[in-house]
Parts: sequence; C-alpha cells; structure tokens
Amino acid sequence: VINKKPLIQLLLITFAFGCAQTEHERSLSLTWEEKAGGVWRCEIGTEEEFDLLDAAGVQPKFDALQKKPAVNFPLDKSLINATWLNGKLYLRFPLDDDEQIYGLGLQFKDVNRRGKVYQLHVDHYGGKDNGRTHAPAPFYVSSKGYGVLINSARYITVYVGTTVRIDSPNQPEVRDRNTDKNWTSRPKSDAVEILVPAQGAEVLVFGGESPLDAVSRYNLYCGGGSLPPKWGLGFTYRTHRLHSDRDVIAEVKAFDENQFPLDFIGLEPGWQSASYPCTYEWDSGRFPQPEKFVQELLQMNVRTNLWLNPYVSPKASLYEKLLPFAGSHSVWTGIVPDYSISEAQRIFMQHFEKHQLDIGVSGVKIDEADGYDHWLWPDVATFPSAVDAEQLRQTYGLILQRMFAESYRKRNIRTFGLTRASNAGAAHLPFVIYNDSYSHEDFITALVNSSFNGILWTPEVRSSETGEEWLRRMQSVCFSPMAMINAWASGTRPWSFPEVYDAVKAVANLRMRLLPYIYSTFAEYHFRGTPPIRAIALIENFDQSEVVEQNNLDDTKNPYEEAVRKDIKDQFMLGDNLLVAPMFSGQKSRKVILPSGKWFDFYTGNFVGEREIIEVSPGIEKIPLFVRDGGIIPMIPSRLHTPKNGEILPLEIRHYGKSPGKFLLYDDDGETYDYESGAHSWTELTVVSTPEGDLRGEVKRLDNNIYNYGKAEWVFRTEAER
Amino acid sequence: VINKKPLIQLLLITFAFGCAQTEHERSLSLTWEEKAGGVWRCEIGTEEEFDLLDAAGVQPKFDALQKKPAVNFPLDKSLINATWLNGKLYLRFPLDDDEQIYGLGLQFKDVNRRGKVYQLHVDHYGGKDNGRTHAPAPFYVSSKGYGVLINSARYITVYVGTTVRIDSPNQPEVRDRNTDKNWTSRPKSDAVEILVPAQGAEVLVFGGESPLDAVSRYNLYCGGGSLPPKWGLGFTYRTHRLHSDRDVIAEVKAFDENQFPLDFIGLEPGWQSASYPCTYEWDSGRFPQPEKFVQELLQMNVRTNLWLNPYVSPKASLYEKLLPFAGSHSVWTGIVPDYSISEAQRIFMQHFEKHQLDIGVSGVKIDEADGYDHWLWPDVATFPSAVDAEQLRQTYGLILQRMFAESYRKRNIRTFGLTRASNAGAAHLPFVIYNDSYSHEDFITALVNSSFNGILWTPEVRSSETGEEWLRRMQSVCFSPMAMINAWASGTRPWSFPEVYDAVKAVANLRMRLLPYIYSTFAEYHFRGTPPIRAIALIENFDQSEVVEQNNLDDTKNPYEEAVRKDIKDQFMLGDNLLVAPMFSGQKSRKVILPSGKWFDFYTGNFVGEREIIEVSPGIEKIPLFVRDGGIIPMIPSRLHTPKNGEILPLEIRHYGKSPGKFLLYDDDGETYDYESGAHSWTELTVVSTPEGDLRGEVKRLDNNIYNYGKAEWVFRTEAER
Repeated sequence: VINKKPLIQLLLITFAFGCAQTEHERSLSLTWEEKAGGVWRCEIGTEEEFDLLDAAGVQPKFDALQKKPAVNFPLDKSLINATWLNGKLYLRFPLDDDEQIYGLGLQFKDVNRRGKVYQLHVDHYGGKDNGRTHAPAPFYVSSKGYGVLINSARYITVYVGTTVRIDSPNQPEVRDRNTDKNWTSRPKSDAVEILVPAQGAEVLVFGGESPLDAVSRYNLYCGGGSLPPKWGLGFTYRTHRLHSDRDVIAEVKAFDENQFPLDFIGLEPGWQSASYPCTYEWDSGRFPQPEKFVQELLQMNVRTNLWLNPYVSPKASLYEKLLPFAGSHSVWTGIVPDYSISEAQRIFMQHFEKHQLDIGVSGVKIDEADGYDHWLWPDVATFPSAVDAEQLRQTYGLILQRMFAESYRKRNIRTFGLTRASNAGAAHLPFVIYNDSYSHEDFITALVNSSFNGILWTPEVRSSETGEEWLRRMQSVCFSPMAMINAWASGTRPWSFPEVYDAVKAVANLRMRLLPYIYSTFAEYHFRGTPPIRAIALIENFDQSEVVEQNNLDDTKNPYEEAVRKDIKDQFMLGDNLLVAPMFSGQKSRKVILPSGKWFDFYTGNFVGEREIIEVSPGIEKIPLFVRDGGIIPMIPSRLHTPKNGEILPLEIRHYGKSPGKFLLYDDDGETYDYESGAHSWTELTVVSTPEGDLRGEVKRLDNNIYNYGKAEWVFRTEAER
Repeated sequence: VINKKPLIQLLLITFAFGCAQTEHERSLSLTWEEKAGGVWRCEIGTEEEFDLLDAAGVQPKFDALQKKPAVNFPLDKSLINATWLNGKLYLRFPLDDDEQIYGLGLQFKDVNRRGKVYQLHVDHYGGKDNGRTHAPAPFYVSSKGYGVLINSARYITVYVGTTVRIDSPNQPEVRDRNTDKNWTSRPKSDAVEILVPAQGAEVLVFGGESPLDAVSRYNLYCGGGSLPPKWGLGFTYRTHRLHSDRDVIAEVKAFDENQFPLDFIGLEPGWQSASYPCTYEWDSGRFPQPEKFVQELLQMNVRTNLWLNPYVSPKASLYEKLLPFAGSHSVWTGIVPDYSISEAQRIFMQHFEKHQLDIGVSGVKIDEADGYDHWLWPDVATFPSAVDAEQLRQTYGLILQRMFAESYRKRNIRTFGLTRASNAGAAHLPFVIYNDSYSHEDFITALVNSSFNGILWTPEVRSSETGEEWLRRMQSVCFSPMAMINAWASGTRPWSFPEVYDAVKAVANLRMRLLPYIYSTFAEYHFRGTPPIRAIALIENFDQSEVVEQNNLDDTKNPYEEAVRKDIKDQFMLGDNLLVAPMFSGQKSRKVILPSGKWFDFYTGNFVGEREIIEVSPGIEKIPLFVRDGGIIPMIPSRLHTPKNGEILPLEIRHYGKSPGKFLLYDDDGETYDYESGAHSWTELTVVSTPEGDLRGEVKRLDNNIYNYGKAEWVFRTEAER
C-alpha cells in the first residue's frame, strides 16, 4: 500500500480468549484522501500489514492518472458505512435502482453481479460463480462509472444488491406471492454490503467518466497493464508432458512444415527430473543439454516456456535451502515456501535465473497455486512470516508472478507467461490466467469478465471431439490475449483435424496479420489503462438498461419464479474497434448485440446494423467479427513468427464504414523495457473526409522513435464493397 | 451445553483494532471429561455462549447412555491437538491409514468424506458436496467406531485426511508424477484438521463398539431420536399452493376414491392471507372457517400440516409485536425475528397456538430458513441478542423446530413436520428435511448420509417426466422417514400416471403394511439411538475395506489421474433387517452390494447372495428389497390410514432365511408423549429352531402396556418357497 498513514488506534482491554462483548460493535468514521487523479483511499479500522496490492508489488502510474480529467468523488460519502463488529469489518456502499455491477474477479457464468453473493477465495473454478476462482479480485465497477477495491488478502464476502436493511429509507414494495404477479424473489436492494474478516482494510474508490474510465484508473493505479513482448502475441504450443528435447524440436519443425505460426513452446512437467513435487532441475535423460536445446529453439525463432508449480520436492537441490521458510504443511509431498519472505524469493529466483532464465528460457507457466482446497495447504497451516494461511492463499499467485517478472525485468527482458492464480493488483504483471475446465462458453464469459478486473485470460485449445469444435475453439483463442494450444496430455496439433485445417490456418494467419492492431491495443492497456479485451458494458455510451425476462414457475427448475437477467457474455471487443462474437460447436447461427453506432462486417465491409440484435450465420470457416463505424485496423502480411525489431514491414491499414476515424499505432523494440524510458513510438493513423466526399487516409508520425513499418496501403473496406 | 465449567480465562492487553501479534498463537492443553457412557467433552479455548446443542434444546438421555457397555476413550489423546491462532481455533484429530470418515451433515453426492474438504454452512444444497447444505452437522463418525462433534454454531472448515504436516512422523511417500505409475494426487494424510473461526468451542467425542454404536451414542446424547406419531409414518400429500378449503377436501376425497393411503395433507403458502413475507393468518377467502375445515379433515382421518417461512410480513398482526426483536435486514421484505430470544419465541408461538395448533393443525413445514445466501439475511446483519448473523444462520432451523416441538409437547400431542434447515442436535426434533433439488440419485445419497448425522430426510416426489420415473420415485419415498408427495406447483396425484398406478398403489400398500416394523424401528431410534435409515457402513461387522479404481488421465475430465473411491451411496438399510436398493428411471438392472451374511429376496424369500455384488433386474413394478438371514418383519393388513390407538390389528410376522432371529415389536398410543413415562410396550418376536430342524415363531409380551395387535400369523418366507 502506498503511503500508509496510521489512523487512531484504540487501545482496549479485552479478553484474548473470551467474550469481547464489552466492545463488540463500533461504527467507524471514514476519511477519504485523493491519492491520484480520481483515486481515493481510506484506511478503515486498522489495515493489515499484508494486502493484495503490496503482494502484487503495485507501483501506481501517478503521472498517467494525473493526466486524466478531474472527476468528483463518485458516491455520496454519507451513504458509505463501516462497522467493526466482533472482530470483523462490515462495509456498505450505496447502490442505485438502475445501477449494474461488474467485476469481482474472473467468474465464468455471468457478467452482471447484481443480485448475487460472492465469497472471494482463490481456488480452481469449480463450475459455479460463487467467488471461488483463479483471480477473485475484490474490485467492482459500476455502470455509473466508478470502481471500488477492498485491498485485503482475506476471504471477503460481497453481497451485491441482495440485502435489504429494515432501516433503509429506500424500501422495496411488499408484495403477496400468493396473488401478485409482480412478486419477485429478489426485492430491490440499495447497497453493496461487504464482510471483511479482519480488523481493517484499505479501501480505494476509483472515479471516472464511464465504466471504462473507472477501470482504466484502476489499471493505472495497479501500475498500468502489462505490455507483452511481441512474441507473446504470436502462437504458443504446449508439448506433451514427457517429450524429450528431440521430440520438441520435431514438433517445432512440424509447425514449420505445416506452415502454422509459432512463437513459443511450452514444456510441461517432464522437463524436470521429478514433478509434483518439483525439482526445478532439467531431467538429464529428456533434456541432457538444456542450454543447447533452448538456443537451438531460439535459432528457429521459437522461445521456451517452462511449466512449474510452487511445491518443492525433497529431491530438489533447493529443498534444504528453502526448508527454513517452509509452511507447516506440504502439498503433493513438496514443501510450500513462504514466498512472502524476500529471502525465500531470492533463494528460489537465484536458482531459476542460473539454470533457466540465463540459458535463454523466456517464461514460465505457474500451475496450481490456486486450488482446489483438497490439494493445497489448509487454512490451518502456519508460515514462518506469520502471514495467515488464508492471506497466502489469496496472494501466492500474485507473489510468484511478481518474482518471475522482477527477475526478467532486472535483465531488461520482457517475459509473458501463464498463471492459474492471481488477484487484484495483477494488471502490471505479464501473465495470462488459464485453467483445467474446458467449456468453450465459460471460457468466453471469462474473457468478458477479465476486462473488468485488470487480468488477462486465455480460452486455451486442448483437444476436441470434432473438427468443428476444434475450429470454433481455435477461432476464439485467436482473439484472446494468448493464442495457446495446450497439448500436454492430448498431443493434438493444429492440423490434427485435416478437414478444417485450412480454416484453422486462415484464422491463425489473421491473428498474425492483426499484430499491429493487437500490440497497439496492449500499449493502450499499459499507458492508458484501457483493457485489451472489453465487455460490451465497457463500450463508451453503452446503454446499460437491461431486458429482464419473466420466467415460468417450475417446482424444481424455478420454484421462485426468478426472472433471468439478459447478460451479454458471449461477445466482446478486442481493442477499440473490433467486436468479436465467437461461435460454439453445433451452432448454425447466433445473435449479436450491436451497441449504438453503425457496425460493419470485418470480412466484407458491409453494413450489418446499428443498436440492434442481429442474427448471423457465417458458416464454419469464419468467426463473426465486426468493426465500428470509422474503425481503423492496421495489419501486416501474414507470417509464421512475430517480427523482430528492425524488420520493417509494410502496413495494410483498413478502414470500415463511412465516418472519419483515428487510430494510434504503437511500436517499440518488442522485447525490452526500454519503452518505459521513452524508446517507443506513437503514430497517428487518420481518415478524413475530402471535400469531394471521399475518404482519405493519413499516416502521421508523432515522434522519431522506434518504428518498424514501411509502406502503408489504405484499404477502405466499406467503400470498396459499394 | 450441559454443565459448562469456566476454563482459565486469560486477560490480555491487546489492540481491539489492531495487530494482536504479541499473542497470536497459543497451544492449548485439553482435558477430557466423561459426561455419560462413552461420551467425553472438552472445552477448548473458551466456549461461546451460543452453540448448536443449546440452540437445539438438547437434553441427553443419560440413563440410556449409562446402560451402554463401557468403552475406552477411542483416540490417542496425545494426538489431539488444539491451537489458538490469530483469533481462530485450529483442531487436529488423528486418522489411521485405513480409516474412513462419514457424516459431516446432509451431503448429496458422496458418502465417504475422506480426502475432501467441507466448509459447514447452512444453505440450500447447490449441487456440490462442499459443506453448504440444509444440515451441515459438524459431527463425523469413523469406521473405527467413534464420533467427534464440534459443538459450535460457526462456519467450520473440516479437512478430512487432505492435509499433510511436514512435522508428521507419518509421511506419505514422495513419488515422481512424470514416471511413477503409483503417483497419487491425494497423498496419505494422518489427520482430520478443523478450523473453528471462534475463540473456542466445546468438543464431544463419542466412543463405541462400532460406527453404529458411536452414532447411537451421539443420538442418545442429542436426546434420542424423535418418535413420530403413527400418522406421521403414513402418506402425506401437499396440495396446490392456491387451493381453497373445498379444493383440499376434494383432494382428500379423491384419495379415498382412488384407494390411496393418506394421513396428512400439507397446505402450501395460499393458506395464509399473504406469503413471502408471511402473515401466519388464514386467508379469509380460501379458508373462511379454518377450524371447521381442519376438523372436517380430522373426521376423515386426515391431519393438516401448514407451510410457513420465518419472515414476518408488515401486514401480519404479529409484525408490530416482533419488530423489537427484528434483525437489521429483511428477507423477502419480511422482518427476521431473533428467535434466539425466548420472548420472541413466546410471542410467535402464542399466535400459532391460538390460530393454528389449538384448532387442530398437526404440524408445520418450515421453509427457507436455510438459504440461498442471496435470499437470506447477510452475514453482516446484526440481531438484538448480539448473536452473530453467522451463528443464527447455523441454528435458525434448529430453533424453529424446537419452538414448534415444544408447543406440541406442552399439549402432550406429538407432531411430525418438515424443515429445510437443521444441524447437529436435531435428532430429538420431530422434523424431516426436504429441499427443492430433485435428482433421484442425490435424494437417495442424502438418505444414506442422513443416517450418520441424527437427521431425517425425505426423497419427496413432486412430478415426473414419465410414468416409470414417477413409479421409481414413489418406490423410494415409501422406504423413507416421510412418504411425501408434494404437488404444490405441479398438482400431480398418485394416479396421474395411470399406466403405473397399480404398481404405485402396491408399493404404497406395502409401506402401510410395514408400519409395525417401521414404527418399531423409530422406537429404536428414540430409545437406543440407532437411526431408522442406515448406510451400509453402519451395518455391524461391515467390512470397511474399499475398492479403489484407477482412472485414466484426461486433460479435462481427470487431469490429475485421480483414483475414484467406490462409495455405497445408492442402497441402505431400513431398520435392522431390510436392505433397500432403489432403482432409477431408465435403469433396467442395478448392482447391489450384499454385506456379510446370507441375504434373501423380500418378495420371494429366495436366497440371493452373501458378501458379494449381485446384479438384479426386478422389472418396473418392484423396488429391490432384501432381508438378512433370520430377519423378522412384522406387518399389518393394508389400509388407507394409520391405525388409531385401541384399533386392534392382526399381525403377519414374516421370517426370512434359515437362521433363528429376534425382533422387538414396539407399541404405544401413537399420538401422545405418554410413552416417555412408560406407557409403551415391547414385545419379543422370536424364531427358534425346533429339534426337528424346523423354524418356530413365538410372540412374547415383555410387559402389559399398550399393545394394539391381535392374532399373529407367522410366515416363513424362505421355507415357504422351498
């Protein structure tokens, strides 16, 4: 936490083992301090020493925040309430009748949080949106354009408009269920109520001109979004878990032979001499010459990513060194180092740097720091730092991401990896979340939800029942933060379904062609906080009013006649201009909600609609993609590897619709952190109307920094189709 | 809690709002006191004032416990560990390698708890065995023949053999997942670890000669099982929610016309003038003369049961009186009275007694005191008693059951009702749990699990897709504590599927014929603590060794190659002699696990097997039923209403197999509590071998108390078939 100020600490005599009834309830007065443009903090009760943003190593981008337009504190302060009761903190924030709430971590089933309860708990997603998930960020964003973060590493319970206080002036109507058709099982609530099982917490409120602006401020406060190396946005393939170095090289060659793009390869547990628990040592049989192997891959323009989990094997050379830092319980017979202690971090990273990073490994996949409960250390475990087991559970993934990120940063090398556990504060960390579940629909909803929480998610492709499913999943993953095929168990390859391979290759090529657009979108995430993937609710001026459908009474399926809220959970924006509407295996057509403004088909440039719901049936080869009016999309020629710095590429700059538009094209060296000290370029791509009523494109360099593009060809996609 | 003794209370100076790091961890020494035969208690830390057994109004049956054989404290005391850490209590109990654990409340998916984690939380069952359920009793029973109860009304987390401490002398083997086929995702654990989020708790340990004996002691400590009135064991039908008095009378007449047994009728919300929230007042339109209506039903030998939930409508006459006792939050716009306060109880029951009980209503169905979270009061709610919202959530169902039970007891009338929320300590309360889910398979597993926890469960029948499903569900419910058809929404009647009505009627008649057997079985529950429904693991001498099947690796369905334990969750014992193996719609045959000893087909008397797994395909008309060797089953002629006191009935006493046997037939007046003061009879039904090698039955009255049976005809079912 930044710049903590101690509040008045009340010294009370109480019974450590007994009834504190003498002082069991206390209303707390709140003081809000503006930390940066539109970001306020309040220390409620006494903050704990250990919190989420600290664990994530957050360093706010104060400069970028100060450049934002000034906004007022977004809530009526008198309606924010905090009570300390029986050792727990109870918080209450106001909620308007027509207000919708988003966020609260990487949930998989729904987007709108109103009317639900979440107990935020780092865990593997278990099929229900109950708050147990890989990144249960205690941050929510309102349709009114503000956000609230409870910066606490506790299992926080959030009641999002489910509670009704009898002393509220804003009472729901009392209706008789027997006879009143308008009876509802979820009466109107005027509050978000929160239980923090701790003596106190820092709370941050983010103002904004829109939900997207509030999210952007949150992301900037969390250090700005991570900017991946360019290779991180190419394709990655995770090889079978027991592959040897020769097997892996053969896989890479096969990608080349099959002309499928590939930028990094993932090695699964078999790279280690033992796993579950881990040794973090190369297996001398499967990988006798690791440095030679990694370098050989680099020669082929392919990076290496290594799987690991945090549980240290007694067989590991690290074991004895880390044992003094071990928690009370083992996981999969490995010790759990207390990485909240910097010396433990140092010991581990020294090993990793020497044996992996410094021989050329480009990143890691941090597995199983999330759950399930029956695998991980219990909440009764103790750790040398005296950090609670609960707190470490909520932050272990953050701490691990940070450890690796800092090692790479020290060497001025960008990394881009995978993690199964994260939380609030992760925006600046170069990791993408994945998991073991595999519902394509849930994966897309997770992508939508990731946009509210400063996290990245990949709807990875592992295996499929049919070619159609394979293709539909490949189409989705191509429009996500990480285009990953994970064959650790299945061994499936992009061309494993020959009947759809042309279409698989086509969408992969499209991803590679879109790199200038995608990279610029990530740069906006880093410099301005706007997430690369965006829920439709984050589109500026999106009409938040909702359609609520009445459902029929059913004694089992719907005994409370619950109305079902229409949630936009199967389509999203990639950057400012591209609306992606994935299709699922078996679907012949789908509905697409088009927000305000005119929308155009990406492939044809044709007008498709405006603030309406359309039905599309694009056939199996295409994923529905739409561009907003005036949308500009810079593209490069198709290629098998992302370009290196200095490799100058021609641009095809597409424009859609009939309106003028502007796009900021970003570039830098693509692999170091030099962009932080100015070694990056912004280029304005502008379309203006000529006096003749035609459209004309202009490329305007705003600076003379690194710029890897040559000739620009403008393609007016909609005009061309007329 | 019985006879609490204050422990040393340490007075410490600490920060009420701050870091108690000065005293954050403390190992607690434990003293075990034998309270009654084979029941030990220990106050760990400082018990809270409010706990489960208190809320349930438990009065242990000390006499019955003292009559049990003496047993030793079942665990190595030195292996029981308690630590107070950061305001929470951490407990550890030993677990042997081959030990299995059962109980921990009404779970629906599995029976064996080992290797899993449960956070015990009263809630509506949501499709997963995670500890959130209608009766999350913090009581477990071991295959080694002992039980442990954490008598705390907190959300307790129980790690059942999932945790491995690095300082344990009993370490699991370290294996390499890469190459070792015997690698397991759940390494051996030697402990049950428990987190109680409180300063202390009472812990009770129950010894025993077997798991059943330990469960019996637990039930006796909880006051002995409830003995329903005889009518409670007949059939019940819950009528459509908006039925008027005439509609209900017509339903009752239709049962008579269709010759289907009926003992009590349930009125759903429409009996009240308004519901959700409730008025607890008769609707003057649908029920203009409630007393006349209830009495008219009683004339037809049918009792009345009334639906209600605990949330009081502002329109209710009770509202103003209960408002001073209301919690801070409303539920469905009704206030939530703090019924932990006896004056609030008194006000409510005075109303109920006057307007419902005293005009002849025989019981209630207590709905929605369980969950879901988005409906109930939040954990941030406060109550006038200063009992925490969490504690009231864990006990509200218990308190409500107790309120009604005590009102009926005051009038010396037995009741038998329904509740959706319960917990440990409920054994003596005359309520059966039900819910809104409807998986037939889950319902049977719940029946199995109810047997470990001192609770009763009904796999109610609501509606069905097909006649086959209707019949299969009817067959199951006939062998459960309450034979309920719930037509509140569907209006379905027993004869709604004419193609199976003969078979439906046949199994209903069989239930009615079995009443002497079932009633005696409930008497054993009351007087000796043995539950009427029993998991196979509760059969004496049942071999607990398990078959573990290796499963195949699959990147989505089983990425950790988890072995699956064979759980016996679809068959159970009803009483000592009858093994019930329900069949599910679509099944043509099923496997039945026959424990040690010879088993015989109930219908034919034929020998079917012995300590083996058999496959049965009984056709749609029959539910598989088996009787143990020497099993005696007393039956009466089929009838439409359970018999009244004084109505003398002939007995058909069936014997199965070739061995001698004994059965204790219980009787009393069937409707008052006079049995508690001795107005009940036990009659020994004995089968002996004659010198000629034949079997001969004897009826031996052990006393001269109430006995409503006349002539006894012995039927040697197995012999007859030879």
